[in-house]
Amino acid sequence: MYKPGDVRVEQRPDPMIVEPTDAIIRLSATCVCGSDLWPYRGVEKLDGPRPMGHEYAGIVEEVGSEVRTVRPGQFVVGSFFASDNTCEICQSGYQTHCVHRQGAAPDGAQAERARIALADGTLVATPEAPSDDLVPSLLAASDVLGTGWFAAIAAEVGPGKTVAVVGDGAVGLLGVLAAKELGAERIIAMSRHADRQKLASEFGATDIVTERGDEGVARIKDLTGGLGAHSTIEAVGTQEAMMQAIHSTRAGGHVGYVGVNHDVSLPGDQLFFSGVHLHGGPAPVRRFLPDLIGRILRRDIDPGRVFDQTLPLEEAAEGYRAMDERRAIKVLLQP
Amino acid sequence: MYKPGDVRVEQRPDPMIVEPTDAIIRLSATCVCGSDLWPYRGVEKLDGPRPMGHEYAGIVEEVGSEVRTVRPGQFVVGSFFASDNTCEICQSGYQTHCVHRQGAAPDGAQAERARIALADGTLVATPEAPSDDLVPSLLAASDVLGTGWFAAIAAEVGPGKTVAVVGDGAVGLLGVLAAKELGAERIIAMSRHADRQKLASEFGATDIVTERGDEGVARIKDLTGGLGAHSTIEAVGTQEAMMQAIHSTRAGGHVGYVGVNHDVSLPGDQLFFSGVHLHGGPAPVRRFLPDLIGRILRRDIDPGRVFDQTLPLEEAAEGYRAMDERRAIKVLLQP
Repeated sequence: MYKPGDVRVEQRPDPMIVEPTDAIIRLSATCVCGSDLWPYRGVEKLDGPRPMGHEYAGIVEEVGSEVRTVRPGQFVVGSFFASDNTCEICQSGYQTHCVHRQGAAPDGAQAERARIALADGTLVATPEAPSDDLVPSLLAASDVLGTGWFAAIAAEVGPGKTVAVVGDGAVGLLGVLAAKELGAERIIAMSRHADRQKLASEFGATDIVTERGDEGVARIKDLTGGLGAHSTIEAVGTQEAMMQAIHSTRAGGHVGYVGVNHDVSLPGDQLFFSGVHLHGGPAPVRRFLPDLIGRILRRDIDPGRVFDQTLPLEEAAEGYRAMDERRAIKVLLQP
Repeated sequence: MYKPGDVRVEQRPDPMIVEPTDAIIRLSATCVCGSDLWPYRGVEKLDGPRPMGHEYAGIVEEVGSEVRTVRPGQFVVGSFFASDNTCEICQSGYQTHCVHRQGAAPDGAQAERARIALADGTLVATPEAPSDDLVPSLLAASDVLGTGWFAAIAAEVGPGKTVAVVGDGAVGLLGVLAAKELGAERIIAMSRHADRQKLASEFGATDIVTERGDEGVARIKDLTGGLGAHSTIEAVGTQEAMMQAIHSTRAGGHVGYVGVNHDVSLPGDQLFFSGVHLHGGPAPVRRFLPDLIGRILRRDIDPGRVFDQTLPLEEAAEGYRAMDERRAIKVLLQP
């Protein structure tokens, strides 16, 4: 990405092993993330051209001398954050805050090949090469599914609970799927787009609310005997969405927020008197990967359905446009 | 309180039963709360003269026709919020957000008598009249102990954990006591007042940090291998204290905040990338009262030690001054 709205596909040098803990993978599939739209729309500042992409699944081609748990030829999925998975913070399940974290794991995964840092801690290999039709779902596990799943865990979704989901992008939709898998009794998706409402319902939403802001909160209260949801997933990252999530939740309930916060400022008094639990941030996808990969390989879940458009990698720019203009929920790119 | 800095003790009509769910109690002791200092200092606006006080313990004198669980002659402690203790929100442990809540339970408890709303849900009677030396601790249970306890619960304090406590007022000090009782391995009290440091240590603090703000955070990091505390109790309510608490906590850790937020605005991006859990608000003291009363009657804990000054009720104005000027941690008033 050269500047907002300007995405180009160029020949770059093949990535190389730099650290002995690196791996090089050949991508089977990659995609455009909702968070890639922040710089695309100029909301997040770019310091010059940036290789894009942090979601990936593919075949290991080469590993550094210290890599022990993955080997060339294996199919792997990795978290978008590199982590050693052994430090105290990783062991507590917060691999996104690994004491050896190095930012995004791949240095531009919207590519044919990518270097993955801390390969042992970051990558999870499948028992055998998955069939092609499972690749989109495995790709989704690397970020968007793992993020929706973390939001549901952070919101303490569980049996008997009513869950509200703010945001109908791919993460919000997979938050619906996660809530369903985690046993929620009722799942209220907040969406005003017919295609997304349909997918939300297929993923397990029991109710659709089209209102936003205060009106959206009022609808959630109406649907929950005036109390609010037990658990609310926030998957947008704006001021309105955060406040909508907080006020849609009953006292003692849980808000799981994973929309990357931009220009958000939470009024302390409103938060204080809401009595909710608030937890979120960049999702420690690595914590959930073995479980999620298992669910996908057993065909219990089909998160790859969020990819409603597939393009060759060369047409990445069109993929960004389609997502920016909401013509696509999420675009898969084939290298 | 007539206006900031102007507290007067006046003859007012005796409180009467208004609702059939009311009780009238004769106060054995009452006190000045840290939150009473907000209007005293002019930070919180007063709409004309206000009867003050919401912490109480005493003898039931009269009950309304629908009151079933307490009777005249019993010694009772109550939460500072009235709650029915039967609604869905109360049953989930958030009595401060009872669907029938009516604000503060007593209408001015810095008095000889007070009317307590929703007496059945709000009051807890002791098995027999307690000995006089236990009254200060039982009074503390009605708010300041219950609030410090809730902060520790909200911060998920437990065995093996390192706990940081921001704020050395009575609530923060009783947060230290709660952390000790709940099995914390290490308790770091942040305080720069010798008398409060001493009491913190006696309540169970293992370390004292005198720095504040970013320097305070750096000291907590130093003491925790660079990671931050597992659990942080925030008992002030200012912007600095909230940010100090959030940044003193490791990713995946828990901040329990009970300082009434005034002019606090939490930057969404800092909260997002901190990866902490945030929970707090007005403490549902009622949830903890039976347990806390038991601990006090068994003399396991002595929270009444936060009262380092006792005055007759007529000298309430001096009590406010002493707390405002930090000459006293907390002032007990004897009606």
